[in-house]
Amino acid sequence: MRLALAASLLALSTAAFAQETEEPPTPASVIAASKTEEWKAVDPADLLVMDLAPDAAGEKRRVVVQLVPPPFSEGWVANLRKLAQAHWWDGTSVYRVVDNWVAQWGDVDETKQLPDGVGEQPDDAYSVPAPTQVTASGAPLCFQAEPGAQSPQVCKGMLVFRGPRSAEYAAYWQGFPFAGSMSPHRSIAWPTHCYGSVGVARSVGSGGTGSELYAVIGHAPRQLDRNIAVVGRVIEGIEHLSTLPRGTGEAGVYETVGERVPIVSVRLSSEFPDAPRFEYLDSESESFAAYVHIRANRHDSFYLHPAGGIDVCNVQPPVRRVSGE
Amino acid sequence: MRLALAASLLALSTAAFAQETEEPPTPASVIAASKTEEWKAVDPADLLVMDLAPDAAGEKRRVVVQLVPPPFSEGWVANLRKLAQAHWWDGTSVYRVVDNWVAQWGDVDETKQLPDGVGEQPDDAYSVPAPTQVTASGAPLCFQAEPGAQSPQVCKGMLVFRGPRSAEYAAYWQGFPFAGSMSPHRSIAWPTHCYGSVGVARSVGSGGTGSELYAVIGHAPRQLDRNIAVVGRVIEGIEHLSTLPRGTGEAGVYETVGERVPIVSVRLSSEFPDAPRFEYLDSESESFAAYVHIRANRHDSFYLHPAGGIDVCNVQPPVRRVSGE
Repeated sequence: MRLALAASLLALSTAAFAQETEEPPTPASVIAASKTEEWKAVDPADLLVMDLAPDAAGEKRRVVVQLVPPPFSEGWVANLRKLAQAHWWDGTSVYRVVDNWVAQWGDVDETKQLPDGVGEQPDDAYSVPAPTQVTASGAPLCFQAEPGAQSPQVCKGMLVFRGPRSAEYAAYWQGFPFAGSMSPHRSIAWPTHCYGSVGVARSVGSGGTGSELYAVIGHAPRQLDRNIAVVGRVIEGIEHLSTLPRGTGEAGVYETVGERVPIVSVRLSSEFPDAPRFEYLDSESESFAAYVHIRANRHDSFYLHPAGGIDVCNVQPPVRRVSGE
Repeated sequence: MRLALAASLLALSTAAFAQETEEPPTPASVIAASKTEEWKAVDPADLLVMDLAPDAAGEKRRVVVQLVPPPFSEGWVANLRKLAQAHWWDGTSVYRVVDNWVAQWGDVDETKQLPDGVGEQPDDAYSVPAPTQVTASGAPLCFQAEPGAQSPQVCKGMLVFRGPRSAEYAAYWQGFPFAGSMSPHRSIAWPTHCYGSVGVARSVGSGGTGSELYAVIGHAPRQLDRNIAVVGRVIEGIEHLSTLPRGTGEAGVYETVGERVPIVSVRLSSEFPDAPRFEYLDSESESFAAYVHIRANRHDSFYLHPAGGIDVCNVQPPVRRVSGE
């Protein structure tokens, strides 16, 4: 049994161990050395908590989704809040699972009436107006929440990775990965499709409502960027989706009702007192900058050839649970 | 139920359907329109067939790995052939599964004696000497199998994607994704870590033997490139690894013997007559070039914004089964 193969990004529990060694920094040791004030609370109103029916062994299956912050996908996120408050997803199911692609849930029959005020969103809102330039220091300008708003303010954003075309970049902001393109005429930014990203399933010619959602369970399908609304990311329990049996029907839909995984409830975390609480490592913090750098430049003894770079989806912004179950 | 979300790359069965429409080309329609002579047989001697114990419902679980062609990872691949011929893996197990990372198998206790001639390989063989230039047409020069061999011959390679640094590229060759870097002093190439790639687990300071293997079941961990030997890729049955319960022990190792997934047998396909036969879409074919282009530039009605590019791990070279079970 050879365990030297580096463990998952999310295995933060090994951080203390890593610190005891005299190795160069590792992602885990950077997290372990981070300061308390570098962690920001996730607003409970930004957490969707989905409880699936227990598994065959009777074990609980809880999936926690952090909603993407404004100005991204605001219409859909507003819908999601209404759907959760109406307990709309209760009794629906995970009905489609495709390997290296997505697990999808909602009302498979599309017969359930949507709550008042939950409507289709426009398909030109997958991206938002964004900075028209990146500062010399590498910091992006702030987002404009609305077209026509005042000119962007300068703010400290996180690491910006310039693409092969200089007008393109990838970055982290408020705990989320995103990408953008700049031009004198139309500069935009959008949340990226990475492992664990949650998006809005839709039909051709429709922007979707958010009632049908999917989580990415494979290699980042970046070609979906700007073609589907990304509304959040799974920050706990992705394994309850990624380990589900793959559907054998058309497009990976489960062929029988019995295969569907019942959704017991979906709630905003703010709705119940014992809900889990989470913190994310501030995208503007020194520790996050160091974390990204080390992910791209491993010098600990296992690594003979540091990569010297890393793609935006290969750094999952660190999240930790601070309470609840 | 909204199914417009594009299905998996591997859902080739929908190809005929796609062709019936008047849509612009899709990956599926390109495959459907490919010519018979564009598909090449995978040599049965290059297929490792791993049968896991049946699942809880009694269903067979077969995982088929195509070995990487020379000159890549030759020492390890030679070991794998010997291990399979010795039936060495029979009775071992899948003992470690980490979400968005790897499923790993072999002799968890490391007590089983290796067959004669199966030894540690040097950790400087993760990459091989490679073309020192890329032709104007974008085709790479052929690989040199050995340092000091005759100067590279010109051959038709597949699409070459130049990286941000002009000395770097990614490409496809003989059905495998790879990457390379060029310099006047030392030009190298290596197989990439993508979803489904199979690599050699190893300890620090060791190149490993190949007796402990892992398959990638998440976003491409490209930082492992040139740090671990890639020996193949899963071309069928990856779901039997990707859906396994995640391990809860250190580094994702199963905590109890009962959690381990028994390996019934691992055989070279050439060893048994009714083994599955496969073909891959020739990396040098027009259809594969079109396939990659369409993956990067979707113009069918679901896509509002073709990406204009795609990363090497977001194109799984197409494979199809032609016989066997």
